[in-house]
Formats: sequence, C-alpha cells, structure tokens
Amino acid sequence: MPDVRIVLVGPKFEGNIGAVARSMANFDFEELFLVDPCAVGDDAYRRAKHGSDVLDRAVTVGTMSEAVEDCFLVAGTSGITTKGDRNYARVPVPVREFALQVSGYEEKIAMVFGREDIGLFQEELNKCDLLINVPTSERYPILNLSHAATLVMYELFQFGKITRRPEPAERKEKEYMFDFFDDLLDAVDYPEQRKGDTSVMFRRMMGRSIPTKYEYNTIMGIFGDASKIIKHGKKWE
Amino acid sequence: MPDVRIVLVGPKFEGNIGAVARSMANFDFEELFLVDPCAVGDDAYRRAKHGSDVLDRAVTVGTMSEAVEDCFLVAGTSGITTKGDRNYARVPVPVREFALQVSGYEEKIAMVFGREDIGLFQEELNKCDLLINVPTSERYPILNLSHAATLVMYELFQFGKITRRPEPAERKEKEYMFDFFDDLLDAVDYPEQRKGDTSVMFRRMMGRSIPTKYEYNTIMGIFGDASKIIKHGKKWE
Repeated sequence: MPDVRIVLVGPKFEGNIGAVARSMANFDFEELFLVDPCAVGDDAYRRAKHGSDVLDRAVTVGTMSEAVEDCFLVAGTSGITTKGDRNYARVPVPVREFALQVSGYEEKIAMVFGREDIGLFQEELNKCDLLINVPTSERYPILNLSHAATLVMYELFQFGKITRRPEPAERKEKEYMFDFFDDLLDAVDYPEQRKGDTSVMFRRMMGRSIPTKYEYNTIMGIFGDASKIIKHGKKWE
Repeated sequence: MPDVRIVLVGPKFEGNIGAVARSMANFDFEELFLVDPCAVGDDAYRRAKHGSDVLDRAVTVGTMSEAVEDCFLVAGTSGITTKGDRNYARVPVPVREFALQVSGYEEKIAMVFGREDIGLFQEELNKCDLLINVPTSERYPILNLSHAATLVMYELFQFGKITRRPEPAERKEKEYMFDFFDDLLDAVDYPEQRKGDTSVMFRRMMGRSIPTKYEYNTIMGIFGDASKIIKHGKKWE
C-alpha cells in the first residue's frame, strides 16, 4: 500500500477539514496537508472526533506545489468527466482502477482535492500526474468534499487490507451437515424421486451463505434432533 | 440494480440527513425514509444542495418496522465486526460483496443506518436479514453517518445492471418460513433461552443466501413436515 498524503487545496469550510480528518483516521491515513485553508477551529475538531490528532499534525502551506514536491505521484480529483478526449487534462481514471494500480507501490502519493465550489485551478490541474474521478450520477456529479475524499480513501484502503471473517466450517463438517439434511429428508418421508435435487438445492443455499462453524453446528444439531425424534421418539438414544 | 430505499433510524443531526440526501442525488437514489428523526430544517437543506427534492419527498415514520415492511431484503449496517463467530448476529458482509450480490435483483431493498451515537438497537438489528459493514481501520472503525451511507450507495451504484436472477421469495413468504423454523425449534424441544438467538442466526444465513421462491417453498415444506411428524406422528392432519 502506498504512503498516502491527503492534500486539501483552499478548503473554505472547517467542518469539511474536520470530516476529512475523521475519515483519515477511519482508513489509517495520517498525513494531511492544507493549502491556504480557512481557519481551523472548534467546528473542525468537533467533526474530526477521534481524528483530532490528524488535525493536530496537519501541515499548512501556501501553494499546492509545496504540498506535493516530495511525492512520487500526484493524483488530482475532478468531478467533471470530459466526453471528448481533446481536453486531455480532464480525462480521469476511475478511483477503483487507480487504487488497484497503485496498490503495489510503497512510495509517497499525494491525493489532491480542490475547493468546495470551484475545484482546482487549471494551473493546479496541470501539476497533477493524473486525474481520478468517482463515478456518479450524470445528473448531479458534484460530491461534497469530505465525501469525495472518503470514497477515495476507502478505495485505497480496500486493496491494502483484507477483512477478517469468522471461521467458516470446514469441508468435512459441511459434508457431515449435508448428511444430516439427507437424514431429515428420510425422516420426513420425502419423495424418493426428489431427494437428489433437494439435497443439491440445500448444498447450493449453504454455498451462497458460507456459514460459520457456529452456524453449521447449530443447524446440524437441530436437523439431527428432528430426525432422531421422528425415528426414535426422543432426542437421546 | 435493486430499487433501494435508504432508511435512517433516529438521526440526531439534521446536517447528516441533508448530507445523505445530497449523496443520494449523487448516486441516483430517490427514496429516503426517516424513522423518528430530529427536526429537518434549514441546515439539512443547506447540506442537501441539489438533493433537496430527496428531502422534500422523504417519508417520516415512527418505527423501523414501518420503514421496511414492504422490502424484499433488509440490510442493516454495523460498524463492529465480531472476531469470534458465536455472536452470529454480528457477522457482517463487506459492502462491496453485498453490492455485487444484489446487483442482479430488481426488488426493493432497504439499507438501514442507525443512530449517530449508538447505532441500531438489538431489536432493530434482529429485524435485518443481514448486516453489512464497510471495512475500516481497526483502531477507529466508526464512520460518520453520511460517510457510511455514501460509501454504501457508491458501491451499490458501481455495479449497475447485471442479468436478472431467479425470482426470490417475498418478504411475507420469508416471514412464514422463519415461523416454520421456530415451530421446528419448538418441536425438537430446543432450549428456551437459546431460541431467540438461533432464530436470528437462521434469518442471517438466509439473508446472505437470498433463496429463491422454489428454495423457500422446499425448505418450508421440509421444516413443516418435520414439525408435524414430531408433534402429531404424521405429516397430514
């Protein structure tokens, strides 16, 4: 995962700065640069919540050049996708594709976000190595600043981490459970000619749901008890 | 692409409601339900920008049940991923996987978001067919409400239209099936104190698997037969 610096150019509302700081903490980003920002006060800290130390450490500079000069790659954001390709400076890469592309690098990347109202100036866009965009509705493509930044950070984060899941049941346990389901079919005197199909149907349902060990054990217990009671009149033989 | 209803349960800050409405317009979502919300006034409209007509059309109800009763699938959000798997009710599906899974359906899906501070109550979580989560930093996993909603809508929007799936069971049919499962628990003399948990566990498994009408009917028949045989000694009364 690259070493990502978030750069906000000319933010006008401190609430947005705070909201971006919070999202940075949510996605493990630490480095925030503010270019010629509005004052950062109580409202920013209120919105930052547990991202307040990101705000504390934020670096304020006067121009975008100062914020990106030591970065390996400079990616600007643009809410506008040009239909034609003559305006090469405005042909963006979708953020997911970009995140995948850079996931193998460890160098420092600057993700640059423009002003809430007018975005980045042409001379700032020209300093970007590439532009990225977030695919949105064509009718209303302009995202709130902190939402745009959050979506970009989310995508960058996804390729760096894999979510831990509860332990799924093993193959052997699952087969055991499918046997218990077949026993239940026998116990309820299920039509012989449909048994095979229904057995596979149940296997497919479980395949889509990917049950945990706990879920398998619980369901297996219920099926087993039902079969035993039907066959022997009681749970415990 | 499913017909998505965004449901905010007990939102406390109107700014968040407005920010969600804006993101809904950004991602072509139209239906907003507010459950017992704070007052919606100038601040909400200021944040909504071009999403103001989403706010105008928002439906306010008193309980989560009223907001989801006509929905095919009810997905709740949870910031907490349980490491162990005993707390089955908290085993969430990552939002990207969920978005891909439901992309082939056209039925109405409720995406339910909880209160800013305490999320959804246990009884509200229990009404969800499945839980989804946004993978985040383990150190600070709690996203701002409008950021969480924006990320979920972004993922749902990305997958657009994919081939139609076999017809899924309706809400009413599913509830009927869950009742049959509960009957089966009674029939096997399942421990009283575990009934509620196991009932919700089964609902979650079905929520992840999204069974077809045929699968539901088949499973319901088997459960029903098993219960009848256990109680009455025969399938047909």
